[in-house]
Amino acid sequence: MLGTQLYAPGDVRIEEMPEPTLQKPTDVTIRLAATCVCGSDLWPYRGLNKFERPMHMGHEYCGTVVEVGSAVTSVKPGQFVVGSFCLSDNTCPHCRYGFQSSCVQREFMTGAQSQFARVPLADGTLIALDQQPDDDLIPSLLAASDVLGTGWYAAVAARVEPGCTAVVVGDGAVGLMGVLAARQLGAARVITMSRHKARQELALDYGATDIVAERGDDGVAKVKALTDQIGADAVLECVGTNESMQQALAIARPGSMIGYVGVPHGVQFDGGRLFYSQTGMLGGPAPVRRFLPKLIDLILTRQINPGKVFDLQLPLADVAEGYKAMDERRAIKALLRV
Amino acid sequence: MLGTQLYAPGDVRIEEMPEPTLQKPTDVTIRLAATCVCGSDLWPYRGLNKFERPMHMGHEYCGTVVEVGSAVTSVKPGQFVVGSFCLSDNTCPHCRYGFQSSCVQREFMTGAQSQFARVPLADGTLIALDQQPDDDLIPSLLAASDVLGTGWYAAVAARVEPGCTAVVVGDGAVGLMGVLAARQLGAARVITMSRHKARQELALDYGATDIVAERGDDGVAKVKALTDQIGADAVLECVGTNESMQQALAIARPGSMIGYVGVPHGVQFDGGRLFYSQTGMLGGPAPVRRFLPKLIDLILTRQINPGKVFDLQLPLADVAEGYKAMDERRAIKALLRV
Repeated sequence: MLGTQLYAPGDVRIEEMPEPTLQKPTDVTIRLAATCVCGSDLWPYRGLNKFERPMHMGHEYCGTVVEVGSAVTSVKPGQFVVGSFCLSDNTCPHCRYGFQSSCVQREFMTGAQSQFARVPLADGTLIALDQQPDDDLIPSLLAASDVLGTGWYAAVAARVEPGCTAVVVGDGAVGLMGVLAARQLGAARVITMSRHKARQELALDYGATDIVAERGDDGVAKVKALTDQIGADAVLECVGTNESMQQALAIARPGSMIGYVGVPHGVQFDGGRLFYSQTGMLGGPAPVRRFLPKLIDLILTRQINPGKVFDLQLPLADVAEGYKAMDERRAIKALLRV
Repeated sequence: MLGTQLYAPGDVRIEEMPEPTLQKPTDVTIRLAATCVCGSDLWPYRGLNKFERPMHMGHEYCGTVVEVGSAVTSVKPGQFVVGSFCLSDNTCPHCRYGFQSSCVQREFMTGAQSQFARVPLADGTLIALDQQPDDDLIPSLLAASDVLGTGWYAAVAARVEPGCTAVVVGDGAVGLMGVLAARQLGAARVITMSRHKARQELALDYGATDIVAERGDDGVAKVKALTDQIGADAVLECVGTNESMQQALAIARPGSMIGYVGVPHGVQFDGGRLFYSQTGMLGGPAPVRRFLPKLIDLILTRQINPGKVFDLQLPLADVAEGYKAMDERRAIKALLRV
């Protein structure tokens, strides 16, 4: 089969490799319907994360079950499934509390930018659809696997409530999904910090009420002006740099929560500053599995269309161009047809 | 009148000084019924905080109104009042959200270790009792001014819920009030980390269900063992050192909240570690004013007895001994009779 390997920063290749096989009784294998490139894939691609070379890339997936391990009870060959990028048993205490991304058996999905993939802990990770989805829903179902679920978690962690004012820091795919999530959760106002026209437009399409193009102190001043100098009730930090986190802290009102889902790179918090700001914080890898049933329902009933976040569609064979386009910010997010 | 001044680390003196007068129309002056020494007073006393010398000490207070400014409408001369150590207008947006300790007009009370004190922003800061309280309730009413309100906020910020397992890090007066608060808010289990026999006993008296005397890795292991290796649902961090914060982080289960009220000294959070721990955080100076009506009611109806936290009572003239006893950990908290 074809699979994607990262050999070195900037050097991602599609190549022939063996099809995955069941390794544990709790595994399944799937034939991918589609997969995609994640913003977090760009960290090693840009040489900002160490990795074992070559690395079999991809953690976002949906598709059809091929084989199931002997212990798997909830999915059958031939079913269409969507799963979280975080693999979980969904039975341990952390899973039962809704934090499947801290499952005691947690693994992170790998190798999904391929024609076939192995999904460990299938019963606790996958949701099977009752029937094959319409083809035009595939991008949205794929988005549920990570980027939508992650934006949703940011909004939940930030405690977005009906009528509140939310600010989304970051106009990448996760930030845009955060806009969608904040509106779905009832935010009356969603201020999006974005400098890029195409992303601003998509943010507005997803329900953003205000766009702030300024950054740094000017961006903070603009958000403060938009909120009567109070600050935001809920902040979704969807980048992960120290600059974006400082921005989030500066615009959050005392007593608000920052839901942070950008994997932190070089982020440090000073205890004293955090204390006196009275800003609440909750972040981490998103427990997508918690939200999947709801998200899939919203997609199948066409109440949301997260798939629009894919503004570039390529055949899997052209995965290298997908990385390049995202790295150069020519694309928000690249879907790979399998 | 007599008042307390800190001249240098370790050099606290009671001395004759002018009685305070009204400076703004929103001020009142009070005759103290009692005041006390706070754990946070020990930071400058120990030379760990810079301060303007001499510093007029004391921010915990209750007593009888002497004079009221022309703009004050809610309290009258002769009334017994209890107020927060954080002075607030209680009308600004942050106050209305319940974060009076981030009031746009916020000031911190000073000069309360005296016979008389000036209380700015009286209408937004003080609660007047309907009648003079019984004498034996004075210590509890005094505790509401800071230490009880701060422990209460720690429990609220940590989102203590009925049936949950809470852990209190720190067996100082605030930690002990945190035990009381966690039980009042319905925690089924309150694990207290304490090495000192007298404090352990008071913690048990306030409703602690388990005592962990170990610290560091041993303490973490003990808490994990007590929680089926899951960790705590809610953690109250009531110290403010890096060591205590690391302890709190290590025992909090993913998705839990740490309510931190110890003023951080040398505390740094690594963004990546906080992210992957999925620990929520909310701290800051306690918005005591939010809780005061409820706390005063619990005290006047004798449902709680926070005043027991004062295990040393001295005349105001002996304030230096109060500081010394607390510094040497001979006393949990020293009340000063005025």
